[in-house]
Amino acid sequence: MSIIDALTRALGEAAVLTGERIQDRFRSDASTTGTSLPKAVIRPSSVEETSTALRICNNHRQTVTPQGGMTGLAGGANPRAEDVALSLERFFGIEEIDTAAATMIVRAGTPLAAAQEAAAAAGFLLPIDLNARGSCQIGGIVATNAGGLRVIRHGATRDNVLGLEAVLADGTIISSLNKMKKNNTGFDLRQIFIGSEGALGIITRAVLRLHPLPAGRSTALCALADYERVVLFLRRAQAALPGLSAFEAMWESYFQVNQQATNGRFFRQAPAFAVILEEDFVGERSDRAGLEAFLAGALGEGLIKDAVIAQSEREGQAIWKIREGPGLNRPLISFDVSIAIGRMGAFADDCAAALAARFPDHPAYFFGHVGDSNLHIVVLIEGAGGEAKRAIDEIVYGLVQSYAGSISAEHGVGVLKRDFLHCSRTAEELAMMRRIKAALDPNNILNPGKVLPEEARYGAA
Amino acid sequence: MSIIDALTRALGEAAVLTGERIQDRFRSDASTTGTSLPKAVIRPSSVEETSTALRICNNHRQTVTPQGGMTGLAGGANPRAEDVALSLERFFGIEEIDTAAATMIVRAGTPLAAAQEAAAAAGFLLPIDLNARGSCQIGGIVATNAGGLRVIRHGATRDNVLGLEAVLADGTIISSLNKMKKNNTGFDLRQIFIGSEGALGIITRAVLRLHPLPAGRSTALCALADYERVVLFLRRAQAALPGLSAFEAMWESYFQVNQQATNGRFFRQAPAFAVILEEDFVGERSDRAGLEAFLAGALGEGLIKDAVIAQSEREGQAIWKIREGPGLNRPLISFDVSIAIGRMGAFADDCAAALAARFPDHPAYFFGHVGDSNLHIVVLIEGAGGEAKRAIDEIVYGLVQSYAGSISAEHGVGVLKRDFLHCSRTAEELAMMRRIKAALDPNNILNPGKVLPEEARYGAA
Repeated sequence: MSIIDALTRALGEAAVLTGERIQDRFRSDASTTGTSLPKAVIRPSSVEETSTALRICNNHRQTVTPQGGMTGLAGGANPRAEDVALSLERFFGIEEIDTAAATMIVRAGTPLAAAQEAAAAAGFLLPIDLNARGSCQIGGIVATNAGGLRVIRHGATRDNVLGLEAVLADGTIISSLNKMKKNNTGFDLRQIFIGSEGALGIITRAVLRLHPLPAGRSTALCALADYERVVLFLRRAQAALPGLSAFEAMWESYFQVNQQATNGRFFRQAPAFAVILEEDFVGERSDRAGLEAFLAGALGEGLIKDAVIAQSEREGQAIWKIREGPGLNRPLISFDVSIAIGRMGAFADDCAAALAARFPDHPAYFFGHVGDSNLHIVVLIEGAGGEAKRAIDEIVYGLVQSYAGSISAEHGVGVLKRDFLHCSRTAEELAMMRRIKAALDPNNILNPGKVLPEEARYGAA
Repeated sequence: MSIIDALTRALGEAAVLTGERIQDRFRSDASTTGTSLPKAVIRPSSVEETSTALRICNNHRQTVTPQGGMTGLAGGANPRAEDVALSLERFFGIEEIDTAAATMIVRAGTPLAAAQEAAAAAGFLLPIDLNARGSCQIGGIVATNAGGLRVIRHGATRDNVLGLEAVLADGTIISSLNKMKKNNTGFDLRQIFIGSEGALGIITRAVLRLHPLPAGRSTALCALADYERVVLFLRRAQAALPGLSAFEAMWESYFQVNQQATNGRFFRQAPAFAVILEEDFVGERSDRAGLEAFLAGALGEGLIKDAVIAQSEREGQAIWKIREGPGLNRPLISFDVSIAIGRMGAFADDCAAALAARFPDHPAYFFGHVGDSNLHIVVLIEGAGGEAKRAIDEIVYGLVQSYAGSISAEHGVGVLKRDFLHCSRTAEELAMMRRIKAALDPNNILNPGKVLPEEARYGAA
């Protein structure tokens, strides 16, 4: 019996799409680099069906590409023509909100926005937040350990997953739906799946931590003269503002081009660094007085040159609009690296100089979640060929390696960064990843070709 | 060549203790259940020596018991006579404090107190804190994912380890000394070692997160009428007090006997629940006004019946003294379980009733880090034999299982809780742990007999 027949017999026609029933949306994630449709799409509607599907695939040595909301940027969910895609879009919904434990149990196919809304309706904040909230799904978010906004206050996805259920390649269901903050009973299996990009198991359900809803929020835009002051200002803000929930820096040219694109007039002349600082107010302390006093002190000391506190939600949005980068012309390449906070300024200088020397016609822009050691770099590539793109990758990732940084702060490795993974990981680390992979998926059916480079590549390194 | 000769030749005499040079302190952790001295103690003074030692042991199929400060309570560091013990007590010290990144790199043999003091001297708080701070070592703390005080504010050890270096059983050095808050470059190897109790690798160095030093701290003791109010009061405190750093509940009899033992007079009559609430002050907000207003509101609503705010550090210490349990007569058995917060009250009632029915002469006391879902139970066992002790274990762990709780919130499994691990973990989870163990330590030389029960035990379950 063919693999498609076996899957259809076990799961029913609604769960197995083939031929023209495979819509184009199963081709690529948001990187738009996917080129093939999978030979079938499996859409289980329960944990047990997921287990059945994987058991059948494993017995047939059928490779499986897990897919969530397809909002990733690393090509991690792109299928090859010989793969079947597995989507849990039919297994969605909130199973429980425990208001005493401050937890929620969410199915993998649930869009993030739906989970956020359910939490808010119960009086809680689900702190995981990404711009793709309308389409990204909990399973994909956990599988990629998505970062996003507010990490400085509440941590990344990993820090907000208390329990997890996943299905191994052979169909074994690993159910660790823990709701407790402390649990030291043997190896922490949930951590193995978080951030593994679907290569070690298919996540089916997660227990997420909830936090109190903030009573309000205040946003400020500050001008600074150099990177050293950016770091001092960050440390000062973390010590003084208990609800600090964003600390975003924009380098001069990034701020200039994007303030102009939004017709913003916050600073007449773009400062060397513009920092967005945001504070969530907790409980009784719902006032701006603390933030104002803090900024006045920083001004008085010469730590910052200027500051604007948003006087309305609309003004706050206008500040964030600049950060979204509407003034950058496509096509572009976007990097998502991390560098130890103290060295990020020097790294950006070196990177800007190296790119300008080689590609004077392709401007590069720098901005990032400095508080999370996360730097974004955008290079405009109008007219650039494949060779130039590869050279840009090599310049950036080569510098990341020399600064002991990470080639992927948030978006994961997928297929697009796979061949640069050695810039951030030693041969021993890669070999250990392979040992784990072989132990949990000995037939290599789960997302093959993703995350880990071909063996010969790193073996030769 | 014998294993001892091979180790001595490679590492030198100072690094290999045998015979009378093996002091009694290598026999048992703080549970005092260890009965054997190891056949040798290896004390490498570098990462490379640790690697050499393990490679030799692995080649000789020599089992190794990793030891830290010997402050554990689960027997996890107790050697058998046929094991060699491995201690990193000669590999200690702070290698770096990065004030921009707010991180410190610490060697495994460093006592926690030394790391805390170094952080404070640099103007930072190392948030990991245990009562055993003077003797416990960073390597053991990370290997057991130690919990302790302040978890409610800063998380457990796992949440404060940014990077890690460990040596596998075969001597491979896995160096992931990451300093970045966001890093999604392949599987998160550090998580595999954290909390693995030395069974997957020997931790040699850790990159720890530092936080701003709080400007001050305020302590209150509150009286509550029932467990439902304890949960509501916790949720309210988390929403209102941004610096909430402790929320400890004492059940009536625990508070009564220990208030009496300390000659405390906080409450004339022991309430159903006494809660210690503590807030760290951040930045400019170093005043008690917020806490006072919050408690006044809770009193007005009838959420709490009474409250005392410590007026001095000494009064704060007097409150904590009660929590330390000086009124409990030894010998005793101490449990360290976790239960979802909303069900903890019912669990404690059921557990108290079951123990009283079977052992009316052995009083049981309840208290815990309620905010962390962590409940401690102490049973006085004067005159009880081995059979009674085993029956008490079975009553408590059987109830933990029926409440979907964890048999070990903080102290780990070691050897003492190994045979009850199935109460908190499914057969599939245990099988997956074995797969990981076999992948990383195929000869089973690292801490054998700890954490995972004998195969037949759970296979038959």
